[in-house]
Amino acid sequence: MRKTIEIIRSPAAMMACSAELKAKGMRLGLVPTMGCLHDGHLSLIRLLDGHCDVKMASIFVNPTQFGPNEDFQKYPRSEARDLRLLESVGCEIAYCPSAADVYADDFTSFVEVGPIADRLCGHFRPGHFRGVATIVLKLFNATRCDAAVFGLKDYQQAVVIRRMVKDLDLNVELLFGETAREADGLAMSSRNSYLSQEERQRAAAIPQALETARTMAEKGESNVERIIYSARNVLLNSQIDSIQYLEIVDPESLEPLPKIDRCGLIVLAVYVGKTRLIDNVLIGPAGRGKPLIANIV
Amino acid sequence: MRKTIEIIRSPAAMMACSAELKAKGMRLGLVPTMGCLHDGHLSLIRLLDGHCDVKMASIFVNPTQFGPNEDFQKYPRSEARDLRLLESVGCEIAYCPSAADVYADDFTSFVEVGPIADRLCGHFRPGHFRGVATIVLKLFNATRCDAAVFGLKDYQQAVVIRRMVKDLDLNVELLFGETAREADGLAMSSRNSYLSQEERQRAAAIPQALETARTMAEKGESNVERIIYSARNVLLNSQIDSIQYLEIVDPESLEPLPKIDRCGLIVLAVYVGKTRLIDNVLIGPAGRGKPLIANIV
Repeated sequence: MRKTIEIIRSPAAMMACSAELKAKGMRLGLVPTMGCLHDGHLSLIRLLDGHCDVKMASIFVNPTQFGPNEDFQKYPRSEARDLRLLESVGCEIAYCPSAADVYADDFTSFVEVGPIADRLCGHFRPGHFRGVATIVLKLFNATRCDAAVFGLKDYQQAVVIRRMVKDLDLNVELLFGETAREADGLAMSSRNSYLSQEERQRAAAIPQALETARTMAEKGESNVERIIYSARNVLLNSQIDSIQYLEIVDPESLEPLPKIDRCGLIVLAVYVGKTRLIDNVLIGPAGRGKPLIANIV
Repeated sequence: MRKTIEIIRSPAAMMACSAELKAKGMRLGLVPTMGCLHDGHLSLIRLLDGHCDVKMASIFVNPTQFGPNEDFQKYPRSEARDLRLLESVGCEIAYCPSAADVYADDFTSFVEVGPIADRLCGHFRPGHFRGVATIVLKLFNATRCDAAVFGLKDYQQAVVIRRMVKDLDLNVELLFGETAREADGLAMSSRNSYLSQEERQRAAAIPQALETARTMAEKGESNVERIIYSARNVLLNSQIDSIQYLEIVDPESLEPLPKIDRCGLIVLAVYVGKTRLIDNVLIGPAGRGKPLIANIV
């Protein structure tokens, strides 16, 4: 019989719990989440199998990674359901601290990971990756995890965290999970719950645009402008409300790729109604073997 | 018979060593240093007694905490002597990495601790405490230390690190050591070796100025301007070349203290010749009990 998930509510309690487990020689694995879990999250928990003795998830809607006009207040919360889902995939510990405990009134320290956090989402969400890097470091420290999993739907986040782990000697094994998708290809996201039925239908154009780009590159199209033009047309023809960015970049540096002569990453952020959605896929010439992403998975 | 100190040269080797010790249930203590050790450093190592099972020191002249026109290149190095001294006080592990191993070519991540790092030395050495916080975090991570000691001669550094440890959930016990002084009161510092014999004599005015301030406050002088005026006179009369700052601040916030009605900290940075020296002492009305510094020691 599966044992009941243990819920930990404060950094101090988490530190005490992880110290106890580490003293027993346990290897700890963590999936940081903002809750409102979907199958994508659960697949990340499963990725921990074989990489740790105890599977943990955190549920924390992190205020420091939201901008002043973003959706922190309305971000969906569903803790009771989340805990049942975590339990169903063998997660033994749920770290669910309060914002007041995570960020004391006199809190002032942040991690800045440098230029890789300034492009794409970082450009349109100033301070976002500073907030992400800082909370992830705090979660790593409080849980003392040996392994952690992040989803590749948030590709730039994955690269930012990999940068931080390397630069700050964190000694945490990073695992990255492929983007989980709905039947029509839309990337799973807690924010999909914001979409009306009509918006949800239009949102299917996002994976279609990315698939158009992927197919063109696979068939030998190397001209970035032509691929972007076609992908953009798919979005606009489906009345995606606005495109915040749509770029083909180097999967390592996230700098614009001038020509598809090797693996690239097509990344986008769009608005469907008032909902901002992001997605990405790796693209490249056929037969060029495993893409660079192999380095980060 | 005392065993030979173990010298570790890379972050990867340090992580492997600390993982092994932690797996044995050892509690690890660290004194981070930039080498060129003096009795002040050795007293910090001794402070670890009773707080850990294994005493470690790091020797690393950290480039990221020096400004472009500062003394990184000429900062004194004396590793062989340092290792003998560490061994003499029971230090079992010396972590002495190379700058190239600590900072890979693609390194870009830093910790910023916020406003407390912007005043006093932070104002005159932009980026200094960013470099200090970042290297200390890296040293904590590589060594996985449970306790760490810092000297109060670098008072602002102590406050900055305490801030970082609290904000980032570091779970490291901090210990702070009183400033070690020469017979004439000059605070021990590796940089004292820069002083000519004549400069060294003039430098004695630094502790005299601080002692003047301390005595005035103890006798009931509460006017900050009058105390600063007297301390400044002691420095100028002894031909201290220039005063970079001389302030009385709150020992917790490092904000200027308007009136000595409670414990304060008189802090200064001065140039003796081309050598920049810092020092500080707690001052306050007599009979006001243990100063606020008790919170950080």
